[in-house]
Amino acid sequence: MALRKLRGGMVGGGTGAFIGPVHRMAATLDGEAEFVAGAFSRDPKKSKQSGEEMGLDPSRVYGTYEEMAAKEAKLPADQRVDFVSVVVPNSGHFPISKTFLEAGINVICDKPMTTTFADAKALQKIVKKSGKVFALTHNYTGYPMVKQARHLVQSGQLGKINKVVVEYPQGWMSGMITNPGNSIGMWRMDPKIAGGSCCMGDLGTHCENLVRYITGLEIEQVCAELTAFVKGNRLEDDGNVLVRFKGGARGILYASQISAGEENPLAIRVYGTKMGLEWKQEDPNYLIVKDPGGFQTRYSKGNNNLCKEAQAAARLIWGHPDGYIEAFANIYREAFKGIRALNAGKKIPVCDHPDATDGLIGVAFIDALLASNKSKSKWTKMKV
Amino acid sequence: MALRKLRGGMVGGGTGAFIGPVHRMAATLDGEAEFVAGAFSRDPKKSKQSGEEMGLDPSRVYGTYEEMAAKEAKLPADQRVDFVSVVVPNSGHFPISKTFLEAGINVICDKPMTTTFADAKALQKIVKKSGKVFALTHNYTGYPMVKQARHLVQSGQLGKINKVVVEYPQGWMSGMITNPGNSIGMWRMDPKIAGGSCCMGDLGTHCENLVRYITGLEIEQVCAELTAFVKGNRLEDDGNVLVRFKGGARGILYASQISAGEENPLAIRVYGTKMGLEWKQEDPNYLIVKDPGGFQTRYSKGNNNLCKEAQAAARLIWGHPDGYIEAFANIYREAFKGIRALNAGKKIPVCDHPDATDGLIGVAFIDALLASNKSKSKWTKMKV
Amino acid sequence: MALRKLRGGMVGGGTGAFIGPVHRMAATLDGEAEFVAGAFSRDPKKSKQSGEEMGLDPSRVYGTYEEMAAKEAKLPADQRVDFVSVVVPNSGHFPISKTFLEAGINVICDKPMTTTFADAKALQKIVKKSGKVFALTHNYTGYPMVKQARHLVQSGQLGKINKVVVEYPQGWMSGMITNPGNSIGMWRMDPKIAGGSCCMGDLGTHCENLVRYITGLEIEQVCAELTAFVKGNRLEDDGNVLVRFKGGARGILYASQISAGEENPLAIRVYGTKMGLEWKQEDPNYLIVKDPGGFQTRYSKGNNNLCKEAQAAARLIWGHPDGYIEAFANIYREAFKGIRALNAGKKIPVCDHPDATDGLIGVAFIDALLASNKSKSKWTKMKV
Amino acid sequence: MALRKLRGGMVGGGTGAFIGPVHRMAATLDGEAEFVAGAFSRDPKKSKQSGEEMGLDPSRVYGTYEEMAAKEAKLPADQRVDFVSVVVPNSGHFPISKTFLEAGINVICDKPMTTTFADAKALQKIVKKSGKVFALTHNYTGYPMVKQARHLVQSGQLGKINKVVVEYPQGWMSGMITNPGNSIGMWRMDPKIAGGSCCMGDLGTHCENLVRYITGLEIEQVCAELTAFVKGNRLEDDGNVLVRFKGGARGILYASQISAGEENPLAIRVYGTKMGLEWKQEDPNYLIVKDPGGFQTRYSKGNNNLCKEAQAAARLIWGHPDGYIEAFANIYREAFKGIRALNAGKKIPVCDHPDATDGLIGVAFIDALLASNKSKSKWTKMKV
Repeated sequence: MALRKLRGGMVGGGTGAFIGPVHRMAATLDGEAEFVAGAFSRDPKKSKQSGEEMGLDPSRVYGTYEEMAAKEAKLPADQRVDFVSVVVPNSGHFPISKTFLEAGINVICDKPMTTTFADAKALQKIVKKSGKVFALTHNYTGYPMVKQARHLVQSGQLGKINKVVVEYPQGWMSGMITNPGNSIGMWRMDPKIAGGSCCMGDLGTHCENLVRYITGLEIEQVCAELTAFVKGNRLEDDGNVLVRFKGGARGILYASQISAGEENPLAIRVYGTKMGLEWKQEDPNYLIVKDPGGFQTRYSKGNNNLCKEAQAAARLIWGHPDGYIEAFANIYREAFKGIRALNAGKKIPVCDHPDATDGLIGVAFIDALLASNKSKSKWTKMKV
Repeated sequence: MALRKLRGGMVGGGTGAFIGPVHRMAATLDGEAEFVAGAFSRDPKKSKQSGEEMGLDPSRVYGTYEEMAAKEAKLPADQRVDFVSVVVPNSGHFPISKTFLEAGINVICDKPMTTTFADAKALQKIVKKSGKVFALTHNYTGYPMVKQARHLVQSGQLGKINKVVVEYPQGWMSGMITNPGNSIGMWRMDPKIAGGSCCMGDLGTHCENLVRYITGLEIEQVCAELTAFVKGNRLEDDGNVLVRFKGGARGILYASQISAGEENPLAIRVYGTKMGLEWKQEDPNYLIVKDPGGFQTRYSKGNNNLCKEAQAAARLIWGHPDGYIEAFANIYREAFKGIRALNAGKKIPVCDHPDATDGLIGVAFIDALLASNKSKSKWTKMKV
Repeated sequence: MALRKLRGGMVGGGTGAFIGPVHRMAATLDGEAEFVAGAFSRDPKKSKQSGEEMGLDPSRVYGTYEEMAAKEAKLPADQRVDFVSVVVPNSGHFPISKTFLEAGINVICDKPMTTTFADAKALQKIVKKSGKVFALTHNYTGYPMVKQARHLVQSGQLGKINKVVVEYPQGWMSGMITNPGNSIGMWRMDPKIAGGSCCMGDLGTHCENLVRYITGLEIEQVCAELTAFVKGNRLEDDGNVLVRFKGGARGILYASQISAGEENPLAIRVYGTKMGLEWKQEDPNYLIVKDPGGFQTRYSKGNNNLCKEAQAAARLIWGHPDGYIEAFANIYREAFKGIRALNAGKKIPVCDHPDATDGLIGVAFIDALLASNKSKSKWTKMKV
Repeated sequence: MALRKLRGGMVGGGTGAFIGPVHRMAATLDGEAEFVAGAFSRDPKKSKQSGEEMGLDPSRVYGTYEEMAAKEAKLPADQRVDFVSVVVPNSGHFPISKTFLEAGINVICDKPMTTTFADAKALQKIVKKSGKVFALTHNYTGYPMVKQARHLVQSGQLGKINKVVVEYPQGWMSGMITNPGNSIGMWRMDPKIAGGSCCMGDLGTHCENLVRYITGLEIEQVCAELTAFVKGNRLEDDGNVLVRFKGGARGILYASQISAGEENPLAIRVYGTKMGLEWKQEDPNYLIVKDPGGFQTRYSKGNNNLCKEAQAAARLIWGHPDGYIEAFANIYREAFKGIRALNAGKKIPVCDHPDATDGLIGVAFIDALLASNKSKSKWTKMKV
C-alpha cells in the first residue's frame, strides 16, 4: 500500500540560502514527503516571497516561527505538518526546536544542536518529554560507505582500535580577500549567532560525530588549540586537537576554515591492531581497507559484498555515484521511519539518525575544546 | 511567482526496476514535477500495485500504455500529464514515444531511441510534426564538469582537436557466473528486445553522444569489431572501434560488459594541439586539464571559475558531491524548460538536452558498427 | 665470494643524451658492473670528450664502434669488455649489435631491435650463432608489479583472458610549438634513422612487449590506423590498433606522441573471466586487481604477499618507491646472470629479460601495423 | 675533465641490512664514488664476509670502526677514503662520526644524529672544528618536488604560512603478530640503542626536517602525547603533536608505527593566505598546489616549468619516475660537492643537504616532545 506523503514545514532556508534547498531535496528525494508550510525568513516579506516561489499555499507561509508553530498545531491532524526542518543559524536551533517540539511537532534540525551546553541539556529533556522525533543533520553519517566502515570496525574486523585521525579542513576563509563575495557564511564568525565556536562548531562537531558513529569510541579528554587567523574573527577559524578516547585509543582531530585551497575533504582514518581503514567525503562512494600484509582493498558502494545498512543506504548500484544529497536524504529517511511509527500510534523504533544525545555530546565537545584552549591546551575532560 | 508542478506519467519502471526510480528521483528533485499517472508494467496487476505503492490515484494507473495515452489525452488540460517518461527496454521506445507524441504529450525517453534506423527516422519526423518536447536521457551530459569540458573545447582552449579516446567498460557480464542473481539486464542480450546490439546500444551510444557533446566532432567512419564472449549471447558484449571524425581527428571508442571488475567508468580524453582534458564518470565532479608544459589542472564542480553552464548544472557548492541523480535531473530540468514554454504558448527555446536528432545519430552509429563488423571491420560511413 | 665487476662498453650515449645515462645508472646500480670503454658519438672528438668526462682510460675511448669492436676483441680476456650497451638511434641497432656479437661480445641493445624485418631475422640468427647474451631493453617489464601481474595472469587467477587494453600516449610532439627546444627526439621522425615507424616503433612496441610479457598472449592479427598529425612528419605520430590474439582474446592497443599534456602513462588493463587487473607506469609500485564482486585490491611493491619474481625485482621494501632506473636495472641484472654464466663456462640459464626473439616479434608487429595501415586498416596477420 | 671517483667507506650495513645497500646505491648512482673500505659489522667475521661479497680489498675491511679510522687516516691521501657512511643504529652515530671527523674524514650519517642533546651539541662543535663535511641523511628532502615546494613557499607564492600538517604513519608494528619475521627494526624499541624515542626519533624527525626545509618555519613550542601500544615497548610507537611555529603559524605533526596497513606515506600540507600545497612521499614525483579559486594544479617532476633546484634534482625527464634511491642520491651528490671542494683546497660551498645543525635541531625536537609528554602534554619550548 502507498505511504501517505509526510507534510513538512521549514524554518529558515529562504531564497538564496545554501542548506535550505539541500534539506528540501533530501526530504523529498524518495517521494516520501512534501513541504507545505514554512517561515523562511525573519523578514516576513521575504518569507512570503520564498513560499510563493515554492508554490505553497500562502496561508501556510508564516512571518515568524512562533506563529507557524501556534497555527500549525491548531490545524486538523490531516493538514498539520508532520515535521519541521530547522535550517537557521546556530542560535535559532534551540528556541525553534523547543517551540515545535512543545507544539507536538517532530523536528529535523541543523547542527550544532544549540549554542550552549545548558540549552543542549534542556533540549534533550524537551525531546524526551515530547515523545517526538528529533533528528540532527550530521549528514555525513548518511553515506553508505560510512555505514560500511562502522560495520567493519564494530564487527571487530579491524581488531582493537588504537588510533584515529579525523580531519575537516576547508579553505574558504583563507586570505578572506580571495572570496570577497562569499558572504554566505559570515554569521559563523559572530558569537551571538554562532555561539562560542566558529570552525569547531561548524566542522569539528562533524568530526566528533563521525568518529563516534564509526568506531563507537567516546572521547574522554581533549587537548586543544584554537586560533583565529582571519583578521577581525572573534571566534576560531582553525582548531587542532589531541584526543584521548575511553579505553585507551588515541587520536588527532582537526578542522580548519583557512586551509587555502581545500574544499570539503572531511576524512577519517581508523587503525586497529589488525587493519586500518580510510574514508574521504570528497570521494564518498569508496572505502579503503588497509591490510598490514600489503593489500589495500577498495570497497565500493552499491555492491552485494557490503553490510545490509550500507546496501540499504545506496540509492543506485555500483559505479553510479551517490552524492551529498542522497546521504542527506538517508538522515531524513530514518527520521521518517520514526515519524511514521508515531503517526501509526506505535513506539519510535531504533532509527539510524543522529539525535538529541548526539547533539548534546557535540555541544559538550565544543565546550571541552573551548575550556582546553583557554587553559593553554590542558587536557580537559568532556562532560556530558 | 511559483511555478506549477508539472504532471508526469511513466511507462515502465514498476517495482524492482533500476532506471524507473532514477527517472522519478531526477524528475522531482527540484520540486518542479510530480508523477500522477503510469503504466508501470505490461502486467496490469503489477502496474496497479506499483501505482499504489507510489500513492497514485488508481484511476490514473493504467494496464497498457495505449490505454494511458488515450485516456490521458482526453483529460482536461489541468489534469492531463505534461510529459511521459518512457523507461522500458529498447523495443518499446519507438511505439510508446510515437503513441504519446501523437496524443500530444511530451516525452522523455531512455536510450537508444529505437532499435532500427527506420524507426529512428520516423520518430524524428513524428517529434517534429508533433511540436512537442522529446528528450533522450543520455544522462552523462548532465554532469557539470562535462559542460565545462565542452566549454573548454568549444572555446578553443585546447586548440584543434586531433585525438579522442572514449571508453565505457563494465564487467557485470564477465564470467556470468559470478553474478548469478543479476538477471536485471538479461533482456539486453535478446535481439527482439534490445535490437541489433547489446553492449554498443547500451554503452557505446553514451560514448558517441559524450564525444559529440563535448567536442562537437561528428563521426565520419568507423572500423569496428564486436564480440560476444558470454556463452549464448547472440549479441555482442564487447566492442572496439577505430573512429575517423570529420575534419581529420582520429579516435578510439570502446565499450564492454565483460571487463571483469569494472563498474561504470565511462571516461573521455580529448587532445588538441594546445592541451588535453580528461573526465571520468566515477569521479564526476572533477575535470583534469593537461598542459604540455608539465601542469595538470583539476577543475572542480561548484566553483566560480567555471563556465556558466557548469555553474548552473551544479546543485551544491564545491566539495559537496553531486551524483548520478543530480546529473540525470539536469536532463529533466532542461526538458521542463521546453515543456513550460509550450504550456505558456511559446516556442520551445534552445534546451541543453539530447533530442531526437541525437537519438537518430545514436542509432545510425550502431548501424555503422554492425555493418563494419559484418564486413570484417572495413571502414564504414555513418549515414544519418 | 665477491663477484668480479663486469666491464661494460657503450656505443652512443655521449654528453647530452637521454638514454645513455639511464643505461649507465641501471647497469651499475647494484655494483655488478662498471663502464670501461665506449664509442660515445659518431663525432670522434665528442666521443673522446664524453669518455674523459666519465673518467675512462683514453685508450678505451674509440672514434667508431667498428674500431672499438676490433680493438676490444683483441684485448686479453681480463681486460676486454664483457658487454656493450647499444644506445644509438634505431638504424644503428643492427650493424652495431651484429659487429659486437660477431666479435664475441655480449650486447644489451635499445629497442626496436632493428629497422627492418630482414635485419631482425638476421640478427636473431647472429645471436644464436654467437652463443652470446643479447638483451633488448623493453625496460618496463623490469618493474616488480609487472612481474606480479604476469604471475596473477599466468597462474590462472584472472580466469581465461578475454580482453586487453594497452595504451601509451605521450604529448611531447603535440603542437610541436610548445616545446621548441625539445630537439632531442627529432631523429624519430626521420625514416632513414627511425625506420618505417615513429610512434609505434618507439612506444607501440613497448605495448606489444608488455602485453605478451604479462599475458603470454600472442597477437594474431592487427587492424591499424596510423596518422601523422605533426606537420612535416613523414612517419606516424599516432597509432590506433584493434588486436586479435591467438585463442580468441580481443584487444585495443594505442600509442601517441600528440596526446597533449600526457607524459609517459603507459598502462595496461587485462580482463579475464574471473578478474581484471590494471597497471600504470607513472604509478609503478602498485597493481590494481579488480574483482567483479565489488572489491578492488591494490597490491604494493616490496611486500611478502607477492610472487617471488616481484619480490626479487624490488630493491626497497614497501612504501619506498622504486623508479624507472631500478626497473631498467632489473633488465641488466638478468642479462648479467647470463653473461656471468658464459664467463664461467656454463650454459646461459633462463633469464628474465627481453631477447632477440622479442625483438623480432616487435619488428614483425611494426610491419603488420604498417601493412594494415597501408591497406586501409584491413586485418593483417603478424608474421614472425 | 673527468672527476676522480671519491673513495667511500662504510660503518655498518653488512649483509642483510636495509639502509646500508641504499647508501651504497645512492652514493654510487652517478658514478661519482665507489666504496673501498668498511667495518660492516661489530662481528669482525661478518664484517670480513660482507666486504668480500662487495669485492673489497680484504686489507680495507676492518673489524672495528676505531681500527678503520686509525688505519685509513694513515693511508696516503690518494688511497684514504674521502668519506665514511655511518649506517648503524642510533647509539653508534655519535662515537663513530666523532672518531672519523677527528681522524679528518668526512662523514655522511644516518638520522637521528645522536641519542642525546649533549652529544648533538658536542658533535656540532666537532664538525665545526674538523672543517669537514658532515651530511645527515634526512633523505626525503632530496626529492625534486620537495625542492619545488620549498621554492613555492619561500618565493611567497603561498602567501604568509598559517598552517602546516605533516604526518608519517607506518603500520609495521601494528598487532606485531602480523609481521612475525620482521625483526629488522627491533632495536628501535631498545632505549639503549635507539635513545629516548622510538617512533619520533625514527619518523617524527623526518617530519620536523621536512617542514623546516620546505617552509623555513622554526618550531617554537610543542604539545605532545607519546604512546606505546605495542606490548613490551618501553619507547613510544605513536606520537601526536600540536605545534606552534615562530611567527604565529600553527601545525599538527604526527608519526606512528602502529597505523595498521600504512606503508611509508610521509606527507605534508602547507597552507598560506594565498594558496596551499600537498606532497606525498609514496607518490613523490608530483606536487599539488591548491588555489582557493577552485583549481588544484599538479606539478610534475622533470619539467621545465620547475625551479632550477627541482630540475637539477631529477635524473630523468617527466613521466619517468625517480624513486627513493634517486632522492637519497641527491643528498650524497650535495655532500660530494663539499668534499670535492675540500679536496681541491677550497672552502665548502653552500650545499643542499642536512647538516649537523639540522641534526641538533632534530634531537632538540625529540627532547621537547619527551619533555612535553612527561608533563602531561604541556606546551614545551624547543631549546637548541
